Amino acid sequence: MNSYSRLSHLQCTRCNAVDDPFALRNVCTRCQGPLYARYRLEPLSRDSSAGRSRGMWRWHEMMPARSADEIVSLGEGGTPLLEAPRLGATLGLSRLLVKEEGGNPTGSFKARGLAAAVTCAKARGAKGFAVPTAGNAGGALAAYAARAGMPAHVFMPRDTPPLFALECATYGARVILVDGLIDRCGELARALVAESGGALFDVSTLKEPYRVEGKKTMGYELAEDLGWELPDVILYPTGGGTGLLGMWKAFDEMEALGWIGSRRPRMVSVQAAGCAPVVRAFDAGLEHMEKWEGATTYASGLRVPKPYADAEILRVLSDSHGTALFVPDEEMQEGVAAMGKAEGLFAAPEGGAVWAAARRLLATGFLSKDDRVVLFDTGTGFKYVR
Amino acid sequence: MNSYSRLSHLQCTRCNAVDDPFALRNVCTRCQGPLYARYRLEPLSRDSSAGRSRGMWRWHEMMPARSADEIVSLGEGGTPLLEAPRLGATLGLSRLLVKEEGGNPTGSFKARGLAAAVTCAKARGAKGFAVPTAGNAGGALAAYAARAGMPAHVFMPRDTPPLFALECATYGARVILVDGLIDRCGELARALVAESGGALFDVSTLKEPYRVEGKKTMGYELAEDLGWELPDVILYPTGGGTGLLGMWKAFDEMEALGWIGSRRPRMVSVQAAGCAPVVRAFDAGLEHMEKWEGATTYASGLRVPKPYADAEILRVLSDSHGTALFVPDEEMQEGVAAMGKAEGLFAAPEGGAVWAAARRLLATGFLSKDDRVVLFDTGTGFKYVR
Repeated sequence: MNSYSRLSHLQCTRCNAVDDPFALRNVCTRCQGPLYARYRLEPLSRDSSAGRSRGMWRWHEMMPARSADEIVSLGEGGTPLLEAPRLGATLGLSRLLVKEEGGNPTGSFKARGLAAAVTCAKARGAKGFAVPTAGNAGGALAAYAARAGMPAHVFMPRDTPPLFALECATYGARVILVDGLIDRCGELARALVAESGGALFDVSTLKEPYRVEGKKTMGYELAEDLGWELPDVILYPTGGGTGLLGMWKAFDEMEALGWIGSRRPRMVSVQAAGCAPVVRAFDAGLEHMEKWEGATTYASGLRVPKPYADAEILRVLSDSHGTALFVPDEEMQEGVAAMGKAEGLFAAPEGGAVWAAARRLLATGFLSKDDRVVLFDTGTGFKYVR
Repeated sequence: MNSYSRLSHLQCTRCNAVDDPFALRNVCTRCQGPLYARYRLEPLSRDSSAGRSRGMWRWHEMMPARSADEIVSLGEGGTPLLEAPRLGATLGLSRLLVKEEGGNPTGSFKARGLAAAVTCAKARGAKGFAVPTAGNAGGALAAYAARAGMPAHVFMPRDTPPLFALECATYGARVILVDGLIDRCGELARALVAESGGALFDVSTLKEPYRVEGKKTMGYELAEDLGWELPDVILYPTGGGTGLLGMWKAFDEMEALGWIGSRRPRMVSVQAAGCAPVVRAFDAGLEHMEKWEGATTYASGLRVPKPYADAEILRVLSDSHGTALFVPDEEMQEGVAAMGKAEGLFAAPEGGAVWAAARRLLATGFLSKDDRVVLFDTGTGFKYVR
């Protein structure tokens, strides 16, 4: 038994089928559902990582790398959770926090997921990668593939701001600009992977088990930074939803380990008015989402017409007594401006979106002024400038 | 006596005059030399910070903030020191490391200096700020001033890549685009400060005591991350030179505390062919630098025609048995490309410059292939794209 990692098996989130965690896998071979990594849950002190350096691998027992040597890292995770009193005052929130993810390698939270996915796929024999992206995931894959010495093929909508593609190319990835959105990119990536005869591995979000493992570390960090007490509400910009699911998974793991209690934050998916499949399904009380046609928003990370883990996202929103809402692009820009002036943050439009969502949720009474609220600013705004 | 910080006095680096560390000061009132912060050096275990969270304030006894509450922070410091075997192979270096500073708030190492300067100036009664900048310092000042709730005036060459000015404006700073370089910006900033009747404080590098205190934390981090043994050589892109001086100061402090021995890295200043006042003075064996006329390079951070702390920089290069060299812009671009493809880094041109410098220093024999060499990538490349 490995003491560095307690990874024990893969489990399908839909049919509960169990699979081998040390084989290279995409989705459940029985039902095509997303696979989750599961860990042995014998006692582990939450202080065990106290002396370890900051970063997302500090919880290595609950992470999938089997040794430190296996990890493909650029120093991801360990981002600051900033008290934001001045920004809170712009909204009327007395205990506002911002989880600022822009300092990650490649400038976004996507670094966490792709560091974990590339680490695990490389260790399981993958030879190269393909990914569809709305923007930041492509840069992150390209960077970690370069760091691992492996080729990467990135499929990106042609109208993504140009710095996203330039970034991928700088890391030596092949960038394929696609006339269409991330769903069309996904089709083309799958076709290339199928043609490759095993030379390429598809790291589409939630179509392999480990991106969510990287993203879950945001949940561990929140808990640790708040003294093992979770916030009241988390506002999360939701494209593919991996971070939302990852944090929820982290909360369950931490509760099973005895690190936190059973109290959970209300989880809120924030989307764009021009692409809101989560909101539409949540509001209609559905268990699945329909594809959003003609998706458009300048928050490129939110241009995901149909998240693959649609049922899982809706279940978290419902189980947490959360909600979903969309905001128009103009309000995102207002949010970016407010975050810059009030706190010195150069937020991504997705970060601006959660600020605007908080304002709307205060108006509806979903948020109270004394709620401890965490806004996720998922990346730097630098890449979005045209 | 404050146990949080051991700050004891200010001392002029030129005439050794002593001054009050709790008064708002720029340069030495007697000789106009740069002032350094000095600390009580009674015993302190280097393990005292082991349990503290990562980031540049973890060495708070040797930092100038008098309490944690006083600190104006966006989560600066604690950046990764990455082993770079593949990049090493592009050069023929077997033990190459990259100190990757792009993950700092505002995307560059300037965050360290301005966090410390804004923290200290605010605590000493400053009401607003002005700064001349070659690029990244302006964004950092603007962000920390916003975080502190104070106004900032940033003087920047008109031909700096546009994202630098946009960033400052996003943080609510007033940006004054100047027909000229940082020296002309400095004149205009000084004039505005003089006119302001005490409303503005000049945070030009090395013209106030605390930017260097923020930058010195790079030296503490190197030592800690390398198990309290310094590297053989540090290649540092040198504009104003604050980081070079700061690390050297850190090494002396750590030796005085018994944290490290007397061995020092050879310190190398890397400049641009189009602006190399350090190299010219070093090669000529001078004690002072002359202004470089007609400075031009796409590495905007290196467009500093005459560093204020010229004598201090030259002394460190000489005392460390280091050197200074310049590289042309085309080689910087080669370096950026190599760092991207080999390791997944989106380096600033200044980062590319040190890669190119390492290649040249291997050719001359200054570097040996087994030297432990640290390249400083001082910021993200995102802001330089036009």
